[in-house]
Parts: sequence; structure tokens; C-alpha cells
Amino acid sequence: MAFKIGLLGLGTVGAGTAEILLNPELRHPLVQEIEIGKVGVRSLDKPRPVDLPADLLTTDLEAIVTDPNIDIVVEVIGGLEPARSLILKAIAHGKHVVTANKAVIARYSDEIFDAASTAGVYVMIEAAVAGGIPVIQPLKQSLSVNRIHRVMGIVNGTTNYILTRMAREGADFDAVLADAQRLGYAEADPTADVDGLDAADKIAILASLAFGGRIKLPEVYCEGIRSISAADIAYADRLGFVIKLLATALREPSAPDDATDHLQVRVHPTLLPKSHPLASVNDVYNAILFEGDPVGQVMLFGRGAGSGPTASAVVSDIQNIVAILKATGSRSPHSTADLHLLLACIHQHYCTISPMDEVVSRFYARFLTRDMPGVIGRLGTCFGDHDVSLESVVQIGFQDDLAEIVVVTHDVREGNFRKALAEIRGFEGVAEIPSVLRVL
Amino acid sequence: MAFKIGLLGLGTVGAGTAEILLNPELRHPLVQEIEIGKVGVRSLDKPRPVDLPADLLTTDLEAIVTDPNIDIVVEVIGGLEPARSLILKAIAHGKHVVTANKAVIARYSDEIFDAASTAGVYVMIEAAVAGGIPVIQPLKQSLSVNRIHRVMGIVNGTTNYILTRMAREGADFDAVLADAQRLGYAEADPTADVDGLDAADKIAILASLAFGGRIKLPEVYCEGIRSISAADIAYADRLGFVIKLLATALREPSAPDDATDHLQVRVHPTLLPKSHPLASVNDVYNAILFEGDPVGQVMLFGRGAGSGPTASAVVSDIQNIVAILKATGSRSPHSTADLHLLLACIHQHYCTISPMDEVVSRFYARFLTRDMPGVIGRLGTCFGDHDVSLESVVQIGFQDDLAEIVVVTHDVREGNFRKALAEIRGFEGVAEIPSVLRVL
Repeated sequence: MAFKIGLLGLGTVGAGTAEILLNPELRHPLVQEIEIGKVGVRSLDKPRPVDLPADLLTTDLEAIVTDPNIDIVVEVIGGLEPARSLILKAIAHGKHVVTANKAVIARYSDEIFDAASTAGVYVMIEAAVAGGIPVIQPLKQSLSVNRIHRVMGIVNGTTNYILTRMAREGADFDAVLADAQRLGYAEADPTADVDGLDAADKIAILASLAFGGRIKLPEVYCEGIRSISAADIAYADRLGFVIKLLATALREPSAPDDATDHLQVRVHPTLLPKSHPLASVNDVYNAILFEGDPVGQVMLFGRGAGSGPTASAVVSDIQNIVAILKATGSRSPHSTADLHLLLACIHQHYCTISPMDEVVSRFYARFLTRDMPGVIGRLGTCFGDHDVSLESVVQIGFQDDLAEIVVVTHDVREGNFRKALAEIRGFEGVAEIPSVLRVL
Repeated sequence: MAFKIGLLGLGTVGAGTAEILLNPELRHPLVQEIEIGKVGVRSLDKPRPVDLPADLLTTDLEAIVTDPNIDIVVEVIGGLEPARSLILKAIAHGKHVVTANKAVIARYSDEIFDAASTAGVYVMIEAAVAGGIPVIQPLKQSLSVNRIHRVMGIVNGTTNYILTRMAREGADFDAVLADAQRLGYAEADPTADVDGLDAADKIAILASLAFGGRIKLPEVYCEGIRSISAADIAYADRLGFVIKLLATALREPSAPDDATDHLQVRVHPTLLPKSHPLASVNDVYNAILFEGDPVGQVMLFGRGAGSGPTASAVVSDIQNIVAILKATGSRSPHSTADLHLLLACIHQHYCTISPMDEVVSRFYARFLTRDMPGVIGRLGTCFGDHDVSLESVVQIGFQDDLAEIVVVTHDVREGNFRKALAEIRGFEGVAEIPSVLRVL
């Protein structure tokens, strides 16, 4: 008897998922045992890009997640509610769940995975991070034997597209954003993308899997790309860097060996050396770089969004569940002890996230100063007073009547750097500090 | 009761595997249930980089693969025999097998997977291709819902290291090879690497998984990098290309939709546009690019060899087997029907490989000609007579008394190009054709 899918949502990803499941060219024997049982939609009248029998469609999503004939609920409606409640209700009714919902997983993974563990069902989330790039299962399986030190990724296609075009065209943020919206690469309300919130959801999920502990989303530091100017991109280029919105999670290098959960988790624009593997990831492409022992560097690259890539991830999760249900010969909920440990989520404690003030990194800062004698000297002295050691201080030109000075630091404690900046902002000769960016 | 590993070989990869299994920092609950039961070595007296109780070591490898206490045999001795026989005997005795042996798998996968299927055991090969990069399991799982069009990879670290240094230093092959041997990046007998045989083994394995059919290794076209000169790398650079040893498997674009098994599978140096994702993969790094529907492009990058990365892949395979054995509650052989379909090998037919003469690609060729009037015209006419359309013909300089001419073609049938070349070789004005390379 076929495994029955209850599909919640028939938008871009839902339609892509249905297309794969209905595609006769895909001959993997597992796909042939999967059947779309019900499809929950908001309106029955809307035209659909995929041909489904009318009697599969319903607007009653609750009825799907409680339907005894449904084995696996696939949630692709997005948003926090009713997605979260439907997922929880599906779990409570013994359904396995596949979801592409990074927002829900980043915020409610604790209650969702606790419920799944109690109910003995799988909750699969490959599609929630980086679309079609296999990253969640490789983290759970191939990389799980490693001690991961750092996860670093370009995980938001919209901002990468904007930054790539800014770099290629020498254009400023607002102009490229407007064009990206016109072309459909950015949403009408671009907040979640350009302010880094979407990337924060994703790095929270990746960090949780890479470091084996739960992450509280509000503790993830998040800074977007609105303040990046064409000038910064040009100066970065001259210094040998590209600017990317990086999502980073790393184990504090200073943490003792047994403190596996002292982490930095943060999203912010970063100056990356041009030779870095992530520096050449352009346009809407995503890539995630893992560094661990003993595997070294591993990078996974591909399309991070879109109907096809995301649906590919959704269906691979469905297949994974069906394969394990077939192998164990039981489609009803498992006892917790019998769950497949490379598919189930097994950690329950929370990681400790270091406050940003304690994070050590390099900085790039651009100052506009009245061209007074001694202003570079006063900057240098003030940074020195706060233990901020400088790699270079360069006056790169003039803007109106103001001298433009770019400072690059060595590794410094963020708190010290911020204190020095606050003092410098009060200097008579300093008109403005238009940009402060981190350097890898 | 712990799952017992019989480790065949305690060289680089074997020692790395033992190190991971004995590392107390790796807390994945699955690793704690894995125990090294026996270790087969050639000599008991050799000093080892890893500390193992002396009574685990034995020189009787046959006794390991028949030992009723061993659940999983890990073969990391390499070479064809006795590796192949030991693997088959282990399977016959109901052991699951993990192997890093690309040479055995590329040649004997048919008998090995047939035997495994009959015995109801798993044979896992993540470590056989591209070391620590998760590629076999992502192919079986995440990407298996896609229709793959092309797999293209840099899968041999030694040749990539040599080509990278040749490009950086403007050096010739022999000098860099000698230095690579001195530094341990190339073996004393470099044949398997520099002649492309190792890459051929790997692309045969990848093609088999990507296209769901068996590949006969002798049908894989294979050309190494010995003929690449500093001059070719420099000319390629001027034309906007880098030269990489590429392993490629693709579905014939002209094949009808139901001919899933009309493939090209080949290894040869290739001129890659500098903007191509694989072009910036340098040094000993490997990367594999998949193109498929609906996922689009996916690239997996990392260290393709070495103790740590390869051992990471071996242990992840062991974990995968233990996870499924625990989930199914049985460590004895499964019935074939109950094998987990995303771990087991399920295809049995053979793919049809197109002969190279029929392959269509672009070519780069360098000619040394006596500077006679009309030689370019005669080249052009001869290529035209054989339906070889040229993109550019450039005289790039002189070498001794000879004019050096570089020709780049459009897409042409290889057979036609070869016939034209044979004719041109007979031209009075043509002294030599030092290089003929394919262009992507």
C-alpha cells in the first residue's frame, strides 16, 4: 500500500513537490510508492501550475493533519501560523513531517522536536536551509563524525544577488534593490532578506546541527546589508576583498575542550579575501563551508531557493522517511528508542552563545573627517588606548570637503573596538563614520 | 551489545578510522555503540600511529571476515587482491562492508553488489570517491529525486596540485611532478594519478550512481596530463581558460527521453572558462558538480584524499549501517526486500557508453608550422572539409624557426576532428601538433 502524503500548500514549493512526485521519468522505486493523498490550499478556484484531481484539494488543513490515511505531512505554506500549529497537530496524530519552513524551525524546533521524539515520528528539514543543496542530511550523516569548528555560509540568495550586482555595476544598494524587486529576485517587503533575518534563521538551524545543541534565535546577532555602499565595495576591492553577507557559527577558539557549546552565531556583511572559497559564490547561489576535524574544509554549493531546488529537497526528505519505514516494516509511529538516529533530532540542551562584545574579529571602518592636521594621529591614539591594534590607516580621497579615511584593524575584541568608535564619534574633526564592517 | 568492526588494514586510512572511533570527544551516541573487534595487518611488529590493544591485531585477514563476532568489515587495505576476495567472503558470511577501495568498486561492483543483495547486507563506499566530501550518500538520497544530466568533477588531488603549480609558476610538467613526489603529493609510480586512471575509477562509480546503471570500466575514455605544457597553460590563460583534469559523465543530449543509459563517461584535461565553478578549485582540493532537474547546479567541494577526510567518510558509513541496524532491531542479514533502499545499491542493468568518435565537443589544438604562406588557409580548408567549424585561428608566436598556431573549434564531432587532424599531420608545412585538448 502506497505511502500517503498530505501536502499543506500548493504555492511555488508545493507545486514543485507535486510535479516531482507525478513525474513518470523519475523511476526510483521509492517514488512509485508515494502517493499524494490530500492537498490543502487557501482557495479551490485558483489556477494551479500542476494538474491534480480536484477531489484531492481541500481548504480544511486541520482535516489533513488528523486524517488517519495520511502517513506524512508536508508543510510548505510558510509563515509562523498556522504552520507551527499544523505541524504540532500532525505530530500529535502520529504523522511524520517534512517542512521547508526555516522560520518555524528556527523558532520552535525545541517544542517540535520534543513532540516528535515523544510521538516517535520524524521531522525532516532539508528544504529549510539552502534549497536544493544537500546540507542537512550530510550534516547529520557524513559530517556527524567530525568535530566541527566553524560553519560559514552565504545562505540568502536575494542579498547575494544584490551584492553581486552592486560589485559588478558599481551601483548603490537602493537602485539594485529596486531593480531586484522589479525582476522578482527580491520581495515587495525585503526586510527578512536584506536585514539578515532569513539568514539568521538558517544559521541557527545549521549551528544547532553542527554543534549538537539548541540555539535561541534572539541570541543570534544579525546585521543586514542596507548600509553597504558602492564606495565600500570599491575600497574593499582595492584591499583585495569582496563583501558578502555571511552567516557564521563557530566554536569559541578559547573555549575549553569540554565546553562544546560556547558558540558565536552571527549574520553580518563581511569582507572576504578574494581567494576564499566563498568569495566566488555569486548571484542567487548559496554555499556553506564547514571546517572540522578530521575532515578539513567541505563546501556545499548550489541554488538556495526556487521551486525546483526546494522541491528536490522536500521530496528527498519524503523518500528518506519512506525508505526507513519500509526497512523497519512499520509505518506507524516508532518508539522513541527505535528512531533512526541519523534522521531524528537527538540533542536537547541549549548552546551558550557568546555576547558580541566578546567576539574577536578584524574590522574595516570608513571615516569622513575634516582635513585637520593630526586627525589620523588622534584616531590611532584612541584605538591604541582601547587595545585596538591597527593593520592600516589610509586616506583614500576626498568626499565634498571631507577627507575619507579607511582603517583596517588586526583581531580585536568587539567591545573594545565599539568603545573606541564611540569616543571617536565625539572628536571635533570626525564628521561621520559611514561604515563599520567585519573582515575575515 | 556493541557493534563489532573488523578493520582490514591499519595504514593511513585505517589508523585514521581507528582514531575517530577511539576519540572521546566524538559524542554521537552511535559511535559509542561501535567497537573495534579485530584489526588485520600485514606485520604485527610495525609501529602504529594509533594505540590499540595488542590482542586486537592479527595477520590472519581471512579469520576476520569469517569471524561470527564481527558485524561490519571495513576494508582499507587498497589494491585489487586480496581486497576483492576478502570483501566477497565477508559478504558471504553475512557481514556488512565499508570500503574505501575505488579500484575494486569500479571493477567489481557488479559481483560485489549482486552478492550483497543476495546476502541482504550493505556495502558502503562513501570513502571510495573524493575522500571526506559527502558525495555518495547525497547522490543516493538528496539528489536521487532528480534527473541528472551531467556530473563533472576534479576528483584527483595529485593532478590538480600539479596543474595548479604549473599555472602559478609557469613550470613544466616534469619539474612539478618531481617536486610533488619529493613533497609526498605524488607517488613514486605516479601512473594511476597522472594518466587519469584513478579519476576514471571514480567517475565510473559516480556515473553509475547518478544515472542508475552499471558502467564497464574499460569503456571509460581516459587521458592524463603528461602532455600538458607550460605553453598550453599560458595560451589557455590568454584565451580566458584554466586547464583542469576533468572527469565527466553525461547523458547524451541527443538521446531520446527513454534512453536513460546513453552516456558519455570520460577523463581528460579540459580548458575551463575561468568563471566556471570548478575553475577556482585548486591545489589538492576536489570538487564535483552535478547538473540536474529540478535541482539545477549543485557542487560539493573539499579534500579528496588523506587520512582524516577519508576516515571521516569511512566512519560515517559505519554509522549509517549501525543506525539502520538499530532502527530495524536486527543485526543479522536482512532479506533483500527489507534493505534500506537509499543505502543499498538497486540497479542491475548496464549503461551504454557512446564511443568517443561520436562525442561532440570543442577543441583546442596547437600547431608548429613552417612559416609558409597559406598554411593557415590549408588548415582552415581541411577542417572545413571535415565539418569542423573554427572559432579562432591565431598565430601566437614563433618557437625556434616554427610558427606557433592555436586553433579553437566550435562544437564538433570528435571523429571528424580526428580525421582532419590526421590529414593535417601529413601536410608538408606542419612540423608538429604538440597539443590537442578539449574545451568546455
